[in-house]
Amino acid sequence: MSSVTSAVVLLSGGLDSTTTLAIARQEGFIVYAMTFRYGQRHEIEIEFARRIAKSFEVADHVVVDIDLQRWGGSALTGNAAVPKKNSVEEIGEEIPITYVPARNTIFLSFALAWAEVLAAQHIFIGVNALDYSGYPDCRPEYIRAFQAMANKATKAAVEGAPFTIHAPLIDLTKSDIIQRGMALGVDYAMTTSCYDPGTKGAACGRCDACLLRLRGFHENGIQDPIVYQPTR
Amino acid sequence: MSSVTSAVVLLSGGLDSTTTLAIARQEGFIVYAMTFRYGQRHEIEIEFARRIAKSFEVADHVVVDIDLQRWGGSALTGNAAVPKKNSVEEIGEEIPITYVPARNTIFLSFALAWAEVLAAQHIFIGVNALDYSGYPDCRPEYIRAFQAMANKATKAAVEGAPFTIHAPLIDLTKSDIIQRGMALGVDYAMTTSCYDPGTKGAACGRCDACLLRLRGFHENGIQDPIVYQPTR
Repeated sequence: MSSVTSAVVLLSGGLDSTTTLAIARQEGFIVYAMTFRYGQRHEIEIEFARRIAKSFEVADHVVVDIDLQRWGGSALTGNAAVPKKNSVEEIGEEIPITYVPARNTIFLSFALAWAEVLAAQHIFIGVNALDYSGYPDCRPEYIRAFQAMANKATKAAVEGAPFTIHAPLIDLTKSDIIQRGMALGVDYAMTTSCYDPGTKGAACGRCDACLLRLRGFHENGIQDPIVYQPTR
Repeated sequence: MSSVTSAVVLLSGGLDSTTTLAIARQEGFIVYAMTFRYGQRHEIEIEFARRIAKSFEVADHVVVDIDLQRWGGSALTGNAAVPKKNSVEEIGEEIPITYVPARNTIFLSFALAWAEVLAAQHIFIGVNALDYSGYPDCRPEYIRAFQAMANKATKAAVEGAPFTIHAPLIDLTKSDIIQRGMALGVDYAMTTSCYDPGTKGAACGRCDACLLRLRGFHENGIQDPIVYQPTR
């Protein structure tokens, strides 16, 4: 792989996307990071993303404003409460109300637009189909379908420069992801995962995202370096 | 088809999308119209879209703000001039610089999000693969690929309510489209097609969109009811 190949990396400021960024860089890509302000209640993650992008010295970082609140449909963008649980075992098989309709499709569509302008043929997304919350747009068959669509949609692909959607975490457990990131020198203190953080950014410790993260650190025998709310 | 079935219709304010809206309504759908302000130089089309949505008494109309100017890549959103020609014969086979990277993919992704929240399983887009400008995201194979992707991406589809992307104009000539719209009572004086209108909205008459539109009316033996700039 050429060391001058560019990639757009979706960066939320979370554990998964930060690890994905580290992997893209290790693979030799020049990284362009893209973050979304979409009306998420955990908007503090955007500040985390900025610091991470800066620390990784990415070639460029864009924060794209989009309005997904106009029509609601999710506990992450609406008024419904984020469900809290006492343990990871309480995470069910059903798609939870934190699902945001078509979110990854919208994110990847913007990444595709930017990649085409940059003449970058690679897009990285930190979705994960194992320790996840059952979202349909985190599955391998979804990623494959998006890539196939992207290669029908764009001038670049039609003219012989197709896109590859990389989802390097897709079949890793949260524990594997953390192990991989630690080996790459990721500082997880810079990341956030909580769906419902306190005003100072402290994680709730009881939403699906927190519970999966905490288990991942626990399984590695290390302490999660971020701050949790004292109610935990 | 049930008369209470809802559909999201992408409405630009142009001739094609307005005809598409008329077709969706004739087919019995409750119409939700969606328009984008994406930094297009022909932003006046948004006002046209508002008037059209009102005249068709749609159930709801959203204008979504997205920023495609941040990275450029098109004469429609950047500083490059829109190419002007003297006749429709000058429109070449190549994809022109008015192509906006991933535009229809971004538009359809937002439509998918709204449709899922509305529990609507139908999305209409007025793309056309015959009298068009060679854009890859106006072809039938693109529409099929988007639909396949949408049905992997969403909770609704996974739970048994898949989406259909309707492109009723896809194999019609511009002349056919106008004929169809006239039969449905569309008032084309309410529409705009020009990529580079004057300050008062008068069409240039010399961009690809104007030339294709003018030929469509000419072939129907009728006068285009909109105002063109006197330089024409």
